[in-house]
Amino acid sequence: MRKKAPRAVVLLSGGLDSTTVLAHAMAEGYSCNCLSFRYGQRQDIELQRAADLCRKMGVENHLILNLDLAAIGGSALTSEIPVPKDRRLSEIEEGIPVTYVPGRNIIFLAHALAWAEVLGAGDIFLGINAVDYSGYPDCRPEFLAAFARMANLGTRAGSEGNPFTLHAPLMRMSKAEIIELGTRLGVDYGATHSCYDPVGELACGRCDACRLRLKGFAEAGLTDPARYVQEER
Amino acid sequence: MRKKAPRAVVLLSGGLDSTTVLAHAMAEGYSCNCLSFRYGQRQDIELQRAADLCRKMGVENHLILNLDLAAIGGSALTSEIPVPKDRRLSEIEEGIPVTYVPGRNIIFLAHALAWAEVLGAGDIFLGINAVDYSGYPDCRPEFLAAFARMANLGTRAGSEGNPFTLHAPLMRMSKAEIIELGTRLGVDYGATHSCYDPVGELACGRCDACRLRLKGFAEAGLTDPARYVQEER
Repeated sequence: MRKKAPRAVVLLSGGLDSTTVLAHAMAEGYSCNCLSFRYGQRQDIELQRAADLCRKMGVENHLILNLDLAAIGGSALTSEIPVPKDRRLSEIEEGIPVTYVPGRNIIFLAHALAWAEVLGAGDIFLGINAVDYSGYPDCRPEFLAAFARMANLGTRAGSEGNPFTLHAPLMRMSKAEIIELGTRLGVDYGATHSCYDPVGELACGRCDACRLRLKGFAEAGLTDPARYVQEER
Repeated sequence: MRKKAPRAVVLLSGGLDSTTVLAHAMAEGYSCNCLSFRYGQRQDIELQRAADLCRKMGVENHLILNLDLAAIGGSALTSEIPVPKDRRLSEIEEGIPVTYVPGRNIIFLAHALAWAEVLGAGDIFLGINAVDYSGYPDCRPEFLAAFARMANLGTRAGSEGNPFTLHAPLMRMSKAEIIELGTRLGVDYGATHSCYDPVGELACGRCDACRLRLKGFAEAGLTDPARYVQEER
């Protein structure tokens, strides 16, 4: 009899990084349960992309949870603070940007952990990266290790000897390397969404997320299949 | 000029423990920002009690956030699994009960942390207790220490040298000791709600929360001012 695939929870925003992580987890043989969040983000078109990707890629479950992050405040992604545009890559790579959402990855991971415990999944995958987003404290390997330790003390499964493992396969990869990996795994990047400040379904091409994405495709020697505003002009 | 009171975030369910913690934090001189959650709990009457207590006690802010814990499932508190009744105290004190909500304290603390970061509050208070609820993995001191470590690595404030401190003043206290503390601090326990399975505004008197509460009042030599179902019969 064939062994049942182990279950994993995958944090999926519908962006380039998390979609690559999903393809990686599926290639590793996991039965994937994808978790997305509606948290008052400007770019909520990404949730439609996440749902479409889940259908196309054949995941086990896709759950979209509502979060009240806008009530907590403090970020350009969930408020009227303008999203920065046309920043130099050197500016993007240093400091903590206004698009930092306080506690966001901690809140996302806390929900992933709760769902993993209910599903009996021991593995959690997420697309955080310490290269392009060095300024986000919740994208660093030492944060992730501390989260795993806390998770294994604070849950029934972890405290009863079934520890959770957190996987961040993109942690040390450049955007170009991520795109090369996803391309090998057959990811349809035209179906992903990265822009912080889209106009309808079109990416702005000027926010930090767009600039890092375009640089990554350029460095990988590939063309980004996503649709950008300027193409329509 | 008088120094401004330091800000704290207090997790407030409207129950006996968290209301005692709020009174303690106020007595310690903190300007308190109380955080409650609407998470599909059966006992959502506690949110009304929390709001009333915040008004009476003069807190700085009270924020009620919506959480989708019911969508995650796995607990008698957010599902159709029956709440256990009439258990012996020895049964309540061992093992993890069906009222355990996977990841609940982790999710609550993650939001408290995000809000604390936005408010510039360095202190977070919560009413967890390792004596009566020894079976809950997320009520243990070692869990709390691991959460604080993770929090200080995963947030802007923590990583920039303004660490968060988590306070669980009830951790080692019996229910009777908690009630004695709150009584000294002037807590109106008639305005608090503990029951997991209330009938309207009346506590059932038979779930684990009611049984621990009634035992605590008895051991403190006090009468519980809360209203219970049997009184109406």
